[in-house]
Amino acid sequence: MVSCAELGEDGVLSRILPLLTSRGPVVLGPGDDAAVLTVAGDLVVTADALVENHDFVVRWSSGEDVGHKAAAQNLADVAAMGARPVGLLVSLAVPELTDISWLEGLARGLDAECAQLDTSVAGGDLSGAEQIMVSITAFGQLEGRQPVRRDGARPGDVVALAGTVGLAAAGLDLLVDDAEQHRADPALAGLIMAQLRPEPPYLSGVAAAEAGASAMLDVSDGLVKDASRIARASGVRLEIHDAFVDLAERLAPAAKVLGAPALKWLHGGGEDHGLLACFPPDVPLPEGFREIGTVLSASEAGPGVTFNGSPSRFNAGWQHFAGGQ
Amino acid sequence: MVSCAELGEDGVLSRILPLLTSRGPVVLGPGDDAAVLTVAGDLVVTADALVENHDFVVRWSSGEDVGHKAAAQNLADVAAMGARPVGLLVSLAVPELTDISWLEGLARGLDAECAQLDTSVAGGDLSGAEQIMVSITAFGQLEGRQPVRRDGARPGDVVALAGTVGLAAAGLDLLVDDAEQHRADPALAGLIMAQLRPEPPYLSGVAAAEAGASAMLDVSDGLVKDASRIARASGVRLEIHDAFVDLAERLAPAAKVLGAPALKWLHGGGEDHGLLACFPPDVPLPEGFREIGTVLSASEAGPGVTFNGSPSRFNAGWQHFAGGQ
Repeated sequence: MVSCAELGEDGVLSRILPLLTSRGPVVLGPGDDAAVLTVAGDLVVTADALVENHDFVVRWSSGEDVGHKAAAQNLADVAAMGARPVGLLVSLAVPELTDISWLEGLARGLDAECAQLDTSVAGGDLSGAEQIMVSITAFGQLEGRQPVRRDGARPGDVVALAGTVGLAAAGLDLLVDDAEQHRADPALAGLIMAQLRPEPPYLSGVAAAEAGASAMLDVSDGLVKDASRIARASGVRLEIHDAFVDLAERLAPAAKVLGAPALKWLHGGGEDHGLLACFPPDVPLPEGFREIGTVLSASEAGPGVTFNGSPSRFNAGWQHFAGGQ
Repeated sequence: MVSCAELGEDGVLSRILPLLTSRGPVVLGPGDDAAVLTVAGDLVVTADALVENHDFVVRWSSGEDVGHKAAAQNLADVAAMGARPVGLLVSLAVPELTDISWLEGLARGLDAECAQLDTSVAGGDLSGAEQIMVSITAFGQLEGRQPVRRDGARPGDVVALAGTVGLAAAGLDLLVDDAEQHRADPALAGLIMAQLRPEPPYLSGVAAAEAGASAMLDVSDGLVKDASRIARASGVRLEIHDAFVDLAERLAPAAKVLGAPALKWLHGGGEDHGLLACFPPDVPLPEGFREIGTVLSASEAGPGVTFNGSPSRFNAGWQHFAGGQ
């Protein structure tokens, strides 16, 4: 093992930068005060961080896993606005005893996730810290499309989902329960991978915007919590039909092992970064989306989310500082 | 005191967001998956973080100080490319017991620094962590100008500086020596403020690009180290005339109190975020710049920096993981 302290800042950068390939409209990449991208029209910008022992632990996640996930959660936010990614910046803070091979893995994971969308890490910075923090900013171009916000859902719209919900949350519960044993079980390993390396349905975001989606977001905090965000912003009720038979089947082995209901993960689990969108009723759903519900007028109790007519029993979702109200 | 844990994530955001005013080409601000900016042509993007106990300590820096400084160091990077800022994103990680008033101060500091340039915080995110980390991304528009890189300096060019060098480093040494006593001394307080709230000469960056600067960067790691970056990238020698009489005078009280030579700070001190630029000899220097040297051909020893013909004795500069080579 070779630590960051042994290599020094310039030495660390000289190991990481060659692992990052430039793709897309990057005029000037890492190495100057700033990077330069060629863009036109409205630009989508979003930031999200992964913090060690809050969002990942190194005994479960390799550097490569964290790279994939950090890129994915930001690229999913770009996709959820209907934009096409044009680049990432990475602000990295690490303890000085961090092994360079962990950081090389991180760079490989970031680069591989970006490569799926023909985009890249355009720049970043490196700091010291007592815990690893990977803070990413992602940029996307709308290419003339309107950004798909959260406040455009209207009664009569179809509620649709691209990608999955609940798998990543089940994976986390499996890791907490017994990481070593469950990783070795083929029926469970896929759920654990969904937690470590989510696979957001990126291209469905652009397709949804082109099809005329009225509202969209990526499900990062759980279906109940995120659907409620659309409901509140739009002043409507989202009635979900619970058409998740296939996902429930994939969750069944975890439900059995952990003695937990699959609905807990389907309703409350985030981090798969599926895309939840609403479409006017006359719009054919774009590829990758399935109908999961209907937009209704807000009930007398106000905007909200119901599953087959009733509130979910599993409505916590994720919140930082969860000791809060 | 009211902690983040007591307020919860949504409660914290409801206290911070009203302190951020939207300015400039922000089509969609905080609250959705991503923000939207209207831009045209080449976009400059840069990221830099301030980490508690590495880049600041809360017993010396108020939240407002950290907000000013975090915005300033990123806006200076935008300026150093010759671009005009269009917005910031803030990725914030804080311990759950952080007092909300510290974060409100941070938001006020960020907003006030942005207001100077008619720009704003367009969005961000909030995470938990064991130490405070303020990671910022700044965006700037080149408005048709070429980005001013580090590799364009040519023999015969004039070396020029806008803003100051050395004051912030002296301020840090004063804080380390005896923060309480030196803050109360009017002859020293200005140096300490230069450390806590640097004032980069932002508008000189655009002026330098318009005037045809051949190379530019912001001095964040010290004059020797940063001038060396231009020298290496351009394959030249930067000969500095050491024309810093006024700065040496401002440093004299600190030199006396601490028994240190002012040259240590002038040559090795970063964090004032002055702009170091090279200009072709026929170009009148834009307002705010003063001539401090000349670009010469690289010596037989290779590219480098000399002060009145000799290397500086004070050439360490700042490096993360300073245990490195």
